[in-house]
Amino acid sequence: MTTAARSTSPTAGSPGAPLALRKPYLLFVGDISYKPHAKTAFGIRDWAPDDCAAQISLPGSGLDLGLPECDPATAAREHGAKTLVLGAAAPGGRIPDHWRPTLLAAIQAGMDVVAGMHTRLSDIPELAAAAQAAGVQLIDVRVPPVGLSVATGRKRSGKRLHTVGTDCALGKKYTALTLAAALKARGIDADFRATGQTGILIAGGGIPIDSVVADFVAGAAEALSPDADPDHWDVIEGQGALLHPSYAAVTLGLLHGSQPDALVICHDPTRTHIVTCPNAAIPPLDEIARRYLEAARLTNPDVRIVGVSLNTSGLSDTAAETAMSEASALLGVPCFDPMKTPADAVIDRLLAA
Amino acid sequence: MTTAARSTSPTAGSPGAPLALRKPYLLFVGDISYKPHAKTAFGIRDWAPDDCAAQISLPGSGLDLGLPECDPATAAREHGAKTLVLGAAAPGGRIPDHWRPTLLAAIQAGMDVVAGMHTRLSDIPELAAAAQAAGVQLIDVRVPPVGLSVATGRKRSGKRLHTVGTDCALGKKYTALTLAAALKARGIDADFRATGQTGILIAGGGIPIDSVVADFVAGAAEALSPDADPDHWDVIEGQGALLHPSYAAVTLGLLHGSQPDALVICHDPTRTHIVTCPNAAIPPLDEIARRYLEAARLTNPDVRIVGVSLNTSGLSDTAAETAMSEASALLGVPCFDPMKTPADAVIDRLLAA
Repeated sequence: MTTAARSTSPTAGSPGAPLALRKPYLLFVGDISYKPHAKTAFGIRDWAPDDCAAQISLPGSGLDLGLPECDPATAAREHGAKTLVLGAAAPGGRIPDHWRPTLLAAIQAGMDVVAGMHTRLSDIPELAAAAQAAGVQLIDVRVPPVGLSVATGRKRSGKRLHTVGTDCALGKKYTALTLAAALKARGIDADFRATGQTGILIAGGGIPIDSVVADFVAGAAEALSPDADPDHWDVIEGQGALLHPSYAAVTLGLLHGSQPDALVICHDPTRTHIVTCPNAAIPPLDEIARRYLEAARLTNPDVRIVGVSLNTSGLSDTAAETAMSEASALLGVPCFDPMKTPADAVIDRLLAA
Repeated sequence: MTTAARSTSPTAGSPGAPLALRKPYLLFVGDISYKPHAKTAFGIRDWAPDDCAAQISLPGSGLDLGLPECDPATAAREHGAKTLVLGAAAPGGRIPDHWRPTLLAAIQAGMDVVAGMHTRLSDIPELAAAAQAAGVQLIDVRVPPVGLSVATGRKRSGKRLHTVGTDCALGKKYTALTLAAALKARGIDADFRATGQTGILIAGGGIPIDSVVADFVAGAAEALSPDADPDHWDVIEGQGALLHPSYAAVTLGLLHGSQPDALVICHDPTRTHIVTCPNAAIPPLDEIARRYLEAARLTNPDVRIVGVSLNTSGLSDTAAETAMSEASALLGVPCFDPMKTPADAVIDRLLAA
């Protein structure tokens, strides 16, 4: 049996469970030659190298992920690939017709196919029929799981770090991935918990939180980071911003359901206002911090801020250093830029209970 | 053409437009004899009497709404009924089989059929086929409109009052209906804007805000109360509570998109904590007020609190008077109980810019 309905996933567990993908992956970049358009494939390669078995591209691409290049049958047989991941976006967000033979070949080799594009895989009859015949799944990571519940607010075991921000698209996912990796590097049991499509493809699971019906946002966040061992850390990718006129609802529901013990505030110091809302000025970081703490205390009174993550890509080295010093002084916590500087001080602060 | 898809409604206007129902109504209570189970029918009768053309019940009910009792064909022909409204809930939230002949008769008389139950009307093949043949609509008010947009945060013209609360189910809808009626009674142009299924059935339109995908909650609220004349008041029904661990996301998105000029805080003084979350204490009203104002200022810096609505149904008369005096003193605004005392002082405060 196959369908895009997430509830039929043999790995999804109970209703409302976050998606879990079958690993390892065959990464497909189509005929895309412009690397930024294949950032999902490179992101998975960089952040989940052990999950990547092979790559496949079409003539004209030339992109190299440093993995064995082979057809789906070979990837399955010789490299154990279980899932083909569409790791590149074609112009317009649709799946080009000439990419389909590769997807069909993967299906016929017994692989699931995963995508996060505007075209739903299951809306392509040829793919749907082939997947049904082969008994594999077509999975659209933009579709939330069915059977989500309303949040209970019950405190869960284990520890949680949540990356929150002052706007969209400034580093919350990258910061969370960096901190999860830094925790693991110290031998600490940690999981990155993805809440957006790119993060889900990198992590191999998660919930696209902004696609969840509003009543269930906090409940979805609860399902995403379930009870865990007392010393386990979930590092939960943030979405939107609490002071964003468009998306604050998503941010707040995710924050409440995550019940974070620790917050890292992500900011781009060149932004004076929400990019898409010119009238929404971004207040100083200490005011941002106060608002996040105030909101988060509803479900975890002991929440604290343990660091600032600054995206200093728009600043000179000198200006970046100044900005980081100022942010650190303002909030009294360590500051880092995950693209440039180590996370050690933030991890130290996190672990110093 | 007919379908439950809201986008096909001839009255719905552009994509993302709130639902608008065809009036007047034939109110159907099935064979329900217990009045509280028919509260939707009585609510519509009480709050929108001019929209009610007739009633129909089945043997065993005996409920009387004070309207002409007649079959659908007569209701359409003699009383101009355009829509049959399921105004009662059967045990389990489903539509009993023996209610269907009445629904079919309404369809055959050219009426739309509207419901807000767990069973979707369009999932009953017999009804779907009949509606298609008759060219009428089956409308489930729990289904949000298609084509909703992300909120822009752009300030709209006209004025807005929003009822917000300390918990669910304590009087936000009733307060909003009362205040909208009080404004109209003073000759002021005002509309009640419904955000939940019962309110939508009473108002004849609206958006079921808790069923909207999280990314679009604030955008749905923007669509619900569009640009209006400078002196027009939209009175927007609140949902959930800002300090509710399960539903705060809904509340915040609705608050931001509503851009209220004025808030009325609704509270039940017998509640010490969120009913469904024993660990979530309800803080004092002045703290609640501070939090709502802080959140609302993001999209309307001039927002103010103009009143408190207390549900004193659980108190003695003496205790109710004391509670109302205390609430009024604490917030420095008038307090009323919409079931017991006049709204005049709150309206006076609202209109005293």
